[in-house]
Amino acid sequence: MIAGKPYRTIWPTDDGVTVIDQRHLPFELVVEELRTWRDMVTAIRDMHVRGAPLIGLAGAYGAWLACREYEGLGAGARLHALKEAMTGLESARPTAVNLRWAITRMRAVVDAGPDPAAATRAALATANAMADADVAACRAMGDAGLPLIEEAARRKPGPVRILTHCNAGWLATVDLGTATSPIYGAVRRGIPVEVWVDETRPRNQGALTAWELGQNGVPCTVICDNEGGHLMQRGLVDMVIVGTDRTAANGDVANKIGTYLKALAARDNGVPFYVALPSASFDADTPEGVGLIPIEERSADEVLRITGRGRSGMETVSLFAEGTRARNDAFDVTPACLVSGYITDRGLLGAGDLIRVLGSSGTVGLRGGTI
Amino acid sequence: MIAGKPYRTIWPTDDGVTVIDQRHLPFELVVEELRTWRDMVTAIRDMHVRGAPLIGLAGAYGAWLACREYEGLGAGARLHALKEAMTGLESARPTAVNLRWAITRMRAVVDAGPDPAAATRAALATANAMADADVAACRAMGDAGLPLIEEAARRKPGPVRILTHCNAGWLATVDLGTATSPIYGAVRRGIPVEVWVDETRPRNQGALTAWELGQNGVPCTVICDNEGGHLMQRGLVDMVIVGTDRTAANGDVANKIGTYLKALAARDNGVPFYVALPSASFDADTPEGVGLIPIEERSADEVLRITGRGRSGMETVSLFAEGTRARNDAFDVTPACLVSGYITDRGLLGAGDLIRVLGSSGTVGLRGGTI
Repeated sequence: MIAGKPYRTIWPTDDGVTVIDQRHLPFELVVEELRTWRDMVTAIRDMHVRGAPLIGLAGAYGAWLACREYEGLGAGARLHALKEAMTGLESARPTAVNLRWAITRMRAVVDAGPDPAAATRAALATANAMADADVAACRAMGDAGLPLIEEAARRKPGPVRILTHCNAGWLATVDLGTATSPIYGAVRRGIPVEVWVDETRPRNQGALTAWELGQNGVPCTVICDNEGGHLMQRGLVDMVIVGTDRTAANGDVANKIGTYLKALAARDNGVPFYVALPSASFDADTPEGVGLIPIEERSADEVLRITGRGRSGMETVSLFAEGTRARNDAFDVTPACLVSGYITDRGLLGAGDLIRVLGSSGTVGLRGGTI
Repeated sequence: MIAGKPYRTIWPTDDGVTVIDQRHLPFELVVEELRTWRDMVTAIRDMHVRGAPLIGLAGAYGAWLACREYEGLGAGARLHALKEAMTGLESARPTAVNLRWAITRMRAVVDAGPDPAAATRAALATANAMADADVAACRAMGDAGLPLIEEAARRKPGPVRILTHCNAGWLATVDLGTATSPIYGAVRRGIPVEVWVDETRPRNQGALTAWELGQNGVPCTVICDNEGGHLMQRGLVDMVIVGTDRTAANGDVANKIGTYLKALAARDNGVPFYVALPSASFDADTPEGVGLIPIEERSADEVLRITGRGRSGMETVSLFAEGTRARNDAFDVTPACLVSGYITDRGLLGAGDLIRVLGSSGTVGLRGGTI
């Protein structure tokens, strides 16, 4: 929802794929038309779109764009070009498993049958179905997580105070969000909630979360990433809900850098720590997270400079003296032992249930396709 | 040291007290002349000067400024004015105990004897002696902490990687710094070190630390506050050294918000976590930190806006949509059980030793003075 109007974050048009270019939020709503699969790679890599579920969908629509582009080529050239496109899309960002998951699905589609136009139509239909499935998964996660908030509300007077890190909201998905879906559900039920929104340096996705919650009428307060432990120590946090870019078979959770620190503080203060995990972000092929999930290292510039609204429009300012070095790992891994439960599209699960319940719906068995 | 030239952060002149206005660092070196005790209150409250030891010294020099201002008043009026000044200076910031410690000492001096001019001279002499003692304390902390770095260097090849939070460097003291003093000592001994500098939102004192270390030729890399846990999990941190604004009798450590999260990560990864604790920051009168040390809540603006160097000079930009709420606790408390050791001016101590060794040199017994 933006200003009361329902929005998806990505949708196909006659000319290509339209996305909300999230780099301009929360100050400006900019929609961007992507016409080629390379445009889509740029949009994923440079984070016009971000959030594991949305990245997956962007990959799927990118595969459709590639089909359109190469429809007129001869069979061999077309296959070669599509192969390059699929590889390019799949490797646009390394950590979120959804991209691999989506491209694995699309490979089987773009490769099917002798009729290129039919393949293009099938690619679009598949991407659309995946987008609808994403919304349905988010809705299911909302249903799975809602009882946790209801129970917290029964236990004490006043609003249920939920801390979240990064943006696992509708901007990270097609609609509803993962971590936010139970929150939106609670608000619809009239349960008073208040959300602590981590700023989430670098890139400050907390600004997206605060904006998104604000647009949906959910009370929230922004805090620096340093603040969460103190609030938990003071009894001001009832639960933590975060998203995930990839969760390993044993339940280790890769998510935006800093998630691990909040999980440690939650354990130290007896605050439940939940991970909103769509099936597509579950990686049954990776036995554990620490050391095995690839962690994307991004440009030092994301740490050293920051963009905001200045006196005369958007302005990027340097925060450190010239020549300062910085390191910028985009994700960290929260060990499964710190997770109280996984809010999934198949219900609330413990780490030990993930393989059994989600194993087959994730990447497992989707290794097919020759492209 | 700035560009090879030794500097203190505060010094008296014929016209008043000169300080480095740290709000302009790391981009510009601005020195500011403070002529009245109210100027000093502003400088402390608005963080032209910051860091617990330096705040204490600023309070002491502020007391001298008050003596100068009120020298010509009649005895009763002078005492009344001085009382207001002492209270104003003492309450300029609530968390650092050094301010209370310094003003308690100065009260006894400005109040002594019938001769106002002599009291003014005594106030200056006392403040100067306290500044010299601060440098000596930092040097002693360097001596106490150096063996920890030496031992870490013996245990493995390559540089000793030290993570620090906020600025507990010479900018937070008169010279040398608290947490940085052992690091400078190690560098002088030729031990290779590398410092991970937490950005330290809000107010980004990490920019001061990186600048200060750079000016002193110490290799360092800036990281976002979210990053430290991940680095520890990957074995890239050999120890943490932080400062403290106030340490309670039981060893609980109030320090810049976010310190607690790093201490939790250190424990979870078996990384030693040290606190550089000058006697003047030890509060023997407060039995424990959590809930008892007052935590300063500062303006939401410090979270919502940020200042850096833009295209045309310094620029303040908004990071969040208009109307966004924020909360900004300046400090948190790290429980003593997470602290591996206290690097003090009386040697390396455990939590159980603090009262015995530091008790008498802190605020205890300094309750005298009528002003």
